[in-house]
Amino acid sequence: MHKQLQNELLTQAKQWTLEAGEIIKDNIHQPTAVATKSNHKDLVTVMDERVEKFLTTNIKQKYPDHQILAEEGFGDIVTTLDGVVWIIDPIDGTMNFVHQKRNFAISVGIYYDNIGYIGIIYDVMANQLYYALKDHGAYKNEEKLPTLKNDLLLSESVLGFNHSWLMKNRYIDEENMQNLVKKIRGVRTYGSAALQFAYVAEGSLDGYLSMRLSPWDFAAGLIIVNEVDGLTTNISGEPLDLLKQTTVFTCHPQIQQKILQNYLT
Amino acid sequence: MHKQLQNELLTQAKQWTLEAGEIIKDNIHQPTAVATKSNHKDLVTVMDERVEKFLTTNIKQKYPDHQILAEEGFGDIVTTLDGVVWIIDPIDGTMNFVHQKRNFAISVGIYYDNIGYIGIIYDVMANQLYYALKDHGAYKNEEKLPTLKNDLLLSESVLGFNHSWLMKNRYIDEENMQNLVKKIRGVRTYGSAALQFAYVAEGSLDGYLSMRLSPWDFAAGLIIVNEVDGLTTNISGEPLDLLKQTTVFTCHPQIQQKILQNYLT
Repeated sequence: MHKQLQNELLTQAKQWTLEAGEIIKDNIHQPTAVATKSNHKDLVTVMDERVEKFLTTNIKQKYPDHQILAEEGFGDIVTTLDGVVWIIDPIDGTMNFVHQKRNFAISVGIYYDNIGYIGIIYDVMANQLYYALKDHGAYKNEEKLPTLKNDLLLSESVLGFNHSWLMKNRYIDEENMQNLVKKIRGVRTYGSAALQFAYVAEGSLDGYLSMRLSPWDFAAGLIIVNEVDGLTTNISGEPLDLLKQTTVFTCHPQIQQKILQNYLT
Repeated sequence: MHKQLQNELLTQAKQWTLEAGEIIKDNIHQPTAVATKSNHKDLVTVMDERVEKFLTTNIKQKYPDHQILAEEGFGDIVTTLDGVVWIIDPIDGTMNFVHQKRNFAISVGIYYDNIGYIGIIYDVMANQLYYALKDHGAYKNEEKLPTLKNDLLLSESVLGFNHSWLMKNRYIDEENMQNLVKKIRGVRTYGSAALQFAYVAEGSLDGYLSMRLSPWDFAAGLIIVNEVDGLTTNISGEPLDLLKQTTVFTCHPQIQQKILQNYLT
């Protein structure tokens, strides 16, 4: 992608994301109608749809040749990552949005010919905007995040993941995960994949893993973590497929191989 | 306790807590020497000790006849809750303090003849001060918190607890806890007992439970949750012992009995 287009898209995407955040903030105290999708833990609200429509309408108007892959279905049916593709989660952490009215994020990733260029994760209620531009580093509210190069022992690490992966499940041996919990210092669960990617990028978590994420959950985070030298793969250590549901493991480089080899694969 | 003393202690305790928070904020970017206590997950820093000394010195100077029960040992050896007893955790969530430089709290509970009168939980870096005065309600930054009287199904509840309780442990059958995870909508883990009590009080979580807390972890939270009609017991449904390590379950009143009876006891 041309430098000029990269910069234009970064500026434009940040602006629309901030505007979408304003829509959410203006309505945060309104009662929210909540519907469930695949099961009683999988929620969607009118606000997810409104924010997604706002973003997709703007993108289609200004960039009619770009593709959009978005959670709530107002984008396109995307089968290749040729050309410019926006990958959007209007509200990542809908359960937090509903129950806490905070701790959710707007997530926007922009890819070109299969390569990630721009990642934006906006913690709306905390006014924290994380973003990255390929080869130009990652930022939190315009302050550059340092790369993850500190010494780190597994026994001193704090990871983020859901409780479900300690229970019998179809993706991973729960005993391996239980052994990992014993080995590390602590585990956190925040209920937003995008935010947990951002926390890994800023060093608040040393890793985050999930057995079932969709592209819109990690498209932006992958780019941001990459810019601070963090490593993101599936739990077999392979590159992520941006068009499918997949296992995801994003991590500080010093402990990534140890966790992959001894606990995940 | 006389009304006048209640009001004086509330004002004084809030002031010292805010001042202690300033000490932490002024030094938040200093490197922190970290020591471990009982095991590699149990941390203490110079700042825990400094804040506890600041609070205990002030209390002993102004109220020499009050007792102090405090985590790091600068208080007294407290064997009864006769008279006024301050129960203090200088930094609840030390692991978050070390790893995230946020998401920790100062917790101060004040009891008189075994009854809780004043609870203060200060989320230092987020500038959120939760407090309660017995029979006068609970507040977040001087805004009164509503009582927990909304309809709530267990299947729509979000609880806070650590991953360890889904693994074999000496306190509870991990299969019961796994069944609870399947039943409810979501689980969060924030790494600070005090903050999770505050979240229950404000309705961000519908319950929080731990198999092993010390009095300083819950002394303030118990009073705050009580003021919004939340219920706090051990996992057998009995009142908490303020002088011992104990299991703890604090909860929205609508789902408390269901969880106690079907999953905990």
